[in-house]
Amino acid sequence: MSSKKVVHFGPFEVTDQVIVDRFKNRSSSAHLSSSQVFYNTSLCFSLVNIKPILPGHVLVIPYRKVQRLTELTQDEVTDLFSTVQKVQKMLAKKYFGTETIAGKPEDGSFNITIQDGKFAGQTVPHVHCHIIPRTKDSTEGDGLYDRLQTEEGNVGGGFWDQNRPVQEGKFPRIEDSDRKPRSAEVMNEEAALYREQMSLLD
Amino acid sequence: MSSKKVVHFGPFEVTDQVIVDRFKNRSSSAHLSSSQVFYNTSLCFSLVNIKPILPGHVLVIPYRKVQRLTELTQDEVTDLFSTVQKVQKMLAKKYFGTETIAGKPEDGSFNITIQDGKFAGQTVPHVHCHIIPRTKDSTEGDGLYDRLQTEEGNVGGGFWDQNRPVQEGKFPRIEDSDRKPRSAEVMNEEAALYREQMSLLD
Repeated sequence: MSSKKVVHFGPFEVTDQVIVDRFKNRSSSAHLSSSQVFYNTSLCFSLVNIKPILPGHVLVIPYRKVQRLTELTQDEVTDLFSTVQKVQKMLAKKYFGTETIAGKPEDGSFNITIQDGKFAGQTVPHVHCHIIPRTKDSTEGDGLYDRLQTEEGNVGGGFWDQNRPVQEGKFPRIEDSDRKPRSAEVMNEEAALYREQMSLLD
Repeated sequence: MSSKKVVHFGPFEVTDQVIVDRFKNRSSSAHLSSSQVFYNTSLCFSLVNIKPILPGHVLVIPYRKVQRLTELTQDEVTDLFSTVQKVQKMLAKKYFGTETIAGKPEDGSFNITIQDGKFAGQTVPHVHCHIIPRTKDSTEGDGLYDRLQTEEGNVGGGFWDQNRPVQEGKFPRIEDSDRKPRSAEVMNEEAALYREQMSLLD
């Protein structure tokens, strides 16, 4: 983070502080490492995911902590989705091996999704847009939308094991032993790579 | 439509022409009725759905016929998602009985989704944003994301029975007899209601 302002994703403060054992022994004031942030503008930032549904699954989040899309100003809307476009271009280079996203099948695809409110599966009460790269292979049997709706897609739960939000819905909770939150090292490494790639786009 | 310009949603021309039997006997140059359009700006329009996954499931579409989100200009991005916000406010009044979307559970929720490319489930090769109202009841057992990924969510197939696009993915095709495209009358009535409600917002 180049800025010194205090950044939150929902209840999580995004800081430079190193939290060694934040998945096991978290206090109620949980933290995210700013090393997971790979891009920021004046109005939003992009974060790698603790438990990506598919490789390259990342989030774009406005700095201003509001829950719903309708609460964003026009400047925030413009900035959020312009950032989504930029992140897509970066991910296309990384995952589809192309600099353009021209709609050709070989260029790969993306699911762009906002779960706007708890009845839509939102678990962190702070607007965030999911960007999920898709390839031909990833459409076969991966049940992405199902997974986004289950514990596996529970961004809040992934970041916050203790007292974490329960996702509204029909699917059984997947046991903790089955969920595999990624290590800080893996996330930081991915974020560093994305950060470098984003700087090449600008 | 107040404008006289030619409007398309993918291969479908949106016209004032009345197509009496467009589901059974469609030529390769399919049409959509402009009566299904309930809102338009200088850069995009909103359309009721032939086969909504849930009540109030509508689409917002840029006039310019490009396939991918990354192909939109900044003005188009701003206009598209500002329109999404406005349509959400209208739908909230209709389906949740409130003029505000303040994030309270009783205000209901929305899935805001773009299937950006064929491997993400896009069947009409023209950017379109799904807006799907959700309530507490609608989260129980409706398998919305599954349905968006199946034939039921095949917007292109719904509009275009003959030679219609096949959705990439894993789910078996639901037989035609099981799909229930809505009648023009039902869609036009819904669009007229939404049109009136949108005018009250502006």
